[in-house]
Amino acid sequence: MKKVNVVVVGATGAVGQEILNILNERNFPINNLKLCATSRSAGTEIEFQGQKYVVEETTPESFTGMDIALFAGGKASLEYGPAAVERGCVVIDNSSNYRMDQEVPLVVPEVNPEDVTWHKGIIANPNCSTIIMVVALKPIYDAAGIKRVVVSTYQAVSGAGKEGIEELTEQVKAVLEGREYPPSKFAHQIAFNLIPHIDVFQDMDYTKEEWKMVKETQKIMHDSSIRITATTVRVPVYRSHSESVNIETERKLTAAQAKEILAQAPGVIVQDDVANKVYPMPLFTSDKDEVFVGRIREDHTVDNGLNLWVAGDQIRKGAATNAVQIAELLLKYDCLMEKK
Amino acid sequence: MKKVNVVVVGATGAVGQEILNILNERNFPINNLKLCATSRSAGTEIEFQGQKYVVEETTPESFTGMDIALFAGGKASLEYGPAAVERGCVVIDNSSNYRMDQEVPLVVPEVNPEDVTWHKGIIANPNCSTIIMVVALKPIYDAAGIKRVVVSTYQAVSGAGKEGIEELTEQVKAVLEGREYPPSKFAHQIAFNLIPHIDVFQDMDYTKEEWKMVKETQKIMHDSSIRITATTVRVPVYRSHSESVNIETERKLTAAQAKEILAQAPGVIVQDDVANKVYPMPLFTSDKDEVFVGRIREDHTVDNGLNLWVAGDQIRKGAATNAVQIAELLLKYDCLMEKK
Repeated sequence: MKKVNVVVVGATGAVGQEILNILNERNFPINNLKLCATSRSAGTEIEFQGQKYVVEETTPESFTGMDIALFAGGKASLEYGPAAVERGCVVIDNSSNYRMDQEVPLVVPEVNPEDVTWHKGIIANPNCSTIIMVVALKPIYDAAGIKRVVVSTYQAVSGAGKEGIEELTEQVKAVLEGREYPPSKFAHQIAFNLIPHIDVFQDMDYTKEEWKMVKETQKIMHDSSIRITATTVRVPVYRSHSESVNIETERKLTAAQAKEILAQAPGVIVQDDVANKVYPMPLFTSDKDEVFVGRIREDHTVDNGLNLWVAGDQIRKGAATNAVQIAELLLKYDCLMEKK
Repeated sequence: MKKVNVVVVGATGAVGQEILNILNERNFPINNLKLCATSRSAGTEIEFQGQKYVVEETTPESFTGMDIALFAGGKASLEYGPAAVERGCVVIDNSSNYRMDQEVPLVVPEVNPEDVTWHKGIIANPNCSTIIMVVALKPIYDAAGIKRVVVSTYQAVSGAGKEGIEELTEQVKAVLEGREYPPSKFAHQIAFNLIPHIDVFQDMDYTKEEWKMVKETQKIMHDSSIRITATTVRVPVYRSHSESVNIETERKLTAAQAKEILAQAPGVIVQDDVANKVYPMPLFTSDKDEVFVGRIREDHTVDNGLNLWVAGDQIRKGAATNAVQIAELLLKYDCLMEKK
């Protein structure tokens, strides 16, 4: 297999680290690897497949001679994405910077893999909650069409990075010891609490996170007629986002049919054996690459309704795994760019 | 004001203790107070309004000469409810034993207060998640009718009593120290986890908790045409249940209209100022008697849709406060029974 030159931008953060884990686990065919980050993290040593790498500060020249740049998130892709593309390096961007750009494919490999083929240098990785939802929605959509989705999320603190994890741990300790631990990463105390507010507020008092679940899903599914309404909530869980998803389909699916369809779907694991208390839970879906679906029930309040409970690791499938899968598709469809 | 004889059955549990707090806070007009529990807790001393009471073991004779019996929960009302009624003592029952009995009113004072007047000795207190939801639904229903509700809950561990609280605390400590702490009150680990399973599984793989939210709401609202589908989830929060509620109304309500209607509704406090990060959170709605509503948004995916985020203390408004309010209605409507 052809080996390629890969640069990871933001290699020292939670998503960057996970990208490296997944490149290793999936044995991605790497020729040269380069790790980049901001000047603050430059100089950090990271081991990958038995070899030590020194993290470099990202510059336009970081992309010279490279085939694929995996951007972990933040503003880096705004600053360096165009420079990478100019040099013939395809950008896979985990930030929201380019997701709704009509010139940029937004790809979930289980849903719209062929969209990588029309890239113009940048491919966007969707929002984590969106990825986890659409992997479960796609097989239902293919079988019965989808008219409307009402989704409520239960999102882990690691969606806010390493600082989110530390804030939960330290705040929980403080609460148990009767000490104060003021919030800094989150708007309010997250220990033993829920915060119905993720990202900034936008139109109609929905958050940006809620609008992402609407608009990104329509783009990925190539269907702007799917109606979606979302309420996104931060919960005191370390890792894996969970979602209560109510679906109105075009045509009837029984719960048994939905289970069978989901069980055969790529990237989905059905965990639904209520007699034995089996259903997805974030604690046990963490560090996994699949999306877990359970509590699959017909919703008797509409002619064609289903309820699902979905959970998935938002750092893996919701970010790093999905990005590496996109890189694999670039090789599979042979659509890298010519290096300049 | 007339003073009455009150017996609290299950006085030593979480709900029983809260009933005593609320009888005191609301200055309920008590003549004689009697505290009862199982033989295991009999002999416990409890102070109420400066006086010490020794908890007695419940027997049929516990109700002789008493006007109102507040049953905190469990099977006690099955065993002793009829004996209380025979003696002319009105039973206010927090368990689910009689809730769906057509001879028994199911009452939320902000919603259907007049239903206390047709009691035949027993009045049922609804499920905690149901109470919290219907207090928010009623003003919307009165203003615009309700066709359909899709609700996902985020329920605190104290819904499972004192042992639920202890299990969360001890398990969180164990996880932080790297120790095992196997679940006992809950089906799985609740520390840093979510469990999409409350009470036993029933028809169509919905839980009993989910069916309660459907059937009790229809009974309280006197409208079996309201279509409700629920997904109930346990979260690692100590106290106060939260609910993401999607409502399809008969007639259009703007978000501004819904806010105004809710702000004027009895028992409701609107917390909805997203610019200042104000919305209900369980940490700050605990130990309160009201139901808090925020994130009030139009749902653009149906002609007449609303999304609400609702939180309320499930031990107070969801149980003890509601029960004491029912007792107050018995006095207001003068519908105690004749003592025998």
